[in-house]
Amino acid sequence: MNITILGTGSVGQALAKKLLTLDNNITIGTRDVEATLTKTELDGFGNPPISKMLTENPKIQLRSFKDSVAGADLVILAVSGRVAIDVLASSGELPAGMTIIDTTNPLDFSNGFPPSLFTESTTSLAEQIQEKFPHLNIVKCFNTMSNAIMINPQILDESSNIFVAGNDEKSRDLVKSLIFEMGWSVGEIVDLGDITAARGLEMIMPLWLRIFQSRGDANFNFKIAE
Amino acid sequence: MNITILGTGSVGQALAKKLLTLDNNITIGTRDVEATLTKTELDGFGNPPISKMLTENPKIQLRSFKDSVAGADLVILAVSGRVAIDVLASSGELPAGMTIIDTTNPLDFSNGFPPSLFTESTTSLAEQIQEKFPHLNIVKCFNTMSNAIMINPQILDESSNIFVAGNDEKSRDLVKSLIFEMGWSVGEIVDLGDITAARGLEMIMPLWLRIFQSRGDANFNFKIAE
Repeated sequence: MNITILGTGSVGQALAKKLLTLDNNITIGTRDVEATLTKTELDGFGNPPISKMLTENPKIQLRSFKDSVAGADLVILAVSGRVAIDVLASSGELPAGMTIIDTTNPLDFSNGFPPSLFTESTTSLAEQIQEKFPHLNIVKCFNTMSNAIMINPQILDESSNIFVAGNDEKSRDLVKSLIFEMGWSVGEIVDLGDITAARGLEMIMPLWLRIFQSRGDANFNFKIAE
Repeated sequence: MNITILGTGSVGQALAKKLLTLDNNITIGTRDVEATLTKTELDGFGNPPISKMLTENPKIQLRSFKDSVAGADLVILAVSGRVAIDVLASSGELPAGMTIIDTTNPLDFSNGFPPSLFTESTTSLAEQIQEKFPHLNIVKCFNTMSNAIMINPQILDESSNIFVAGNDEKSRDLVKSLIFEMGWSVGEIVDLGDITAARGLEMIMPLWLRIFQSRGDANFNFKIAE
């Protein structure tokens, strides 16, 4: 597949490297290609600069948001929640029915760490994105874990869960196939149905962050024990 | 111990029966003893009437909120989130340093099912209770699972987690001892530190409810896979 990943942070880089190994064509979108390539230090959120990763993986293309989506079969939104809608709006025109994987979290860092959420509990960022772009099929996925686990669930000793939510069943199936290829077993993939399930998926981020603070590492994931 | 449970719903009844088997003296508090005893049907939330349980367990006392807390070593708040602060305020005077286990969730059913939360993500109901009663030691626990699992974690095939959060370390230790006696192993009990962790614990309720809807049963619990 031709996969476009919008966002050059840790999540975008991890997904790009993994999906490249699965024989996809990967394009990464960024606001300003030149500015992105000249960054040499971690940003304020601990994201490493992308230039090194691109040098090591020359098949991955870096393009402006607008140019990055041409010919894409699938788009992955991997930017900070605050700019998610703007980034999708500033990307080139996307055909009706395109599947967009939304990995974002509506984190509000205006009062420092730990962040709160900038959404109310009667909605979710994924739903807001879906409302803004009704011709696209938004599928929430990946937002509930570290990027190391997203692309390699076997680094945990125990099995854990990855969740999928979106209004279009075929788009959910596409995402489920993709994460299965990435190493998630059928039993680990939980389809929660329509996009309103994203409320719960986004609202577990505060607990994730608290456990992260408490442990001092991100080597854990949520699991539904039964 | 003399344990007072405020609330006559499913959670209060389950905890009362379990803690009675562990040789505690159990008093249940309710707003109106006579009215509570005359109920014979499930309420709107599916809570069974308490009269049958009291007949089967004659050692359990039913008292008004105000009378129920006299002589208590520990109080468990097991009412709906909307009335949690009012119920604690209408209970008799509680001595400084008393441990209060807060099992509540800030569920807002005003728009039907599934409920949203009536708290913002910058706070939690447990923190609001703690602020309202600064002389008491609020410990959040039990709010993240069905009452059947609270009192019998072994009904699940897999191990899972129970979380504890509160500002006072001795009170957290008291609660950890109690849930250990109830059947939770040391490795399953996760101490998340101060009461601000209750934000995350309350905010996973929407995901719990979505999984519940998706499965059609409550026979599951969250687990931190590592």
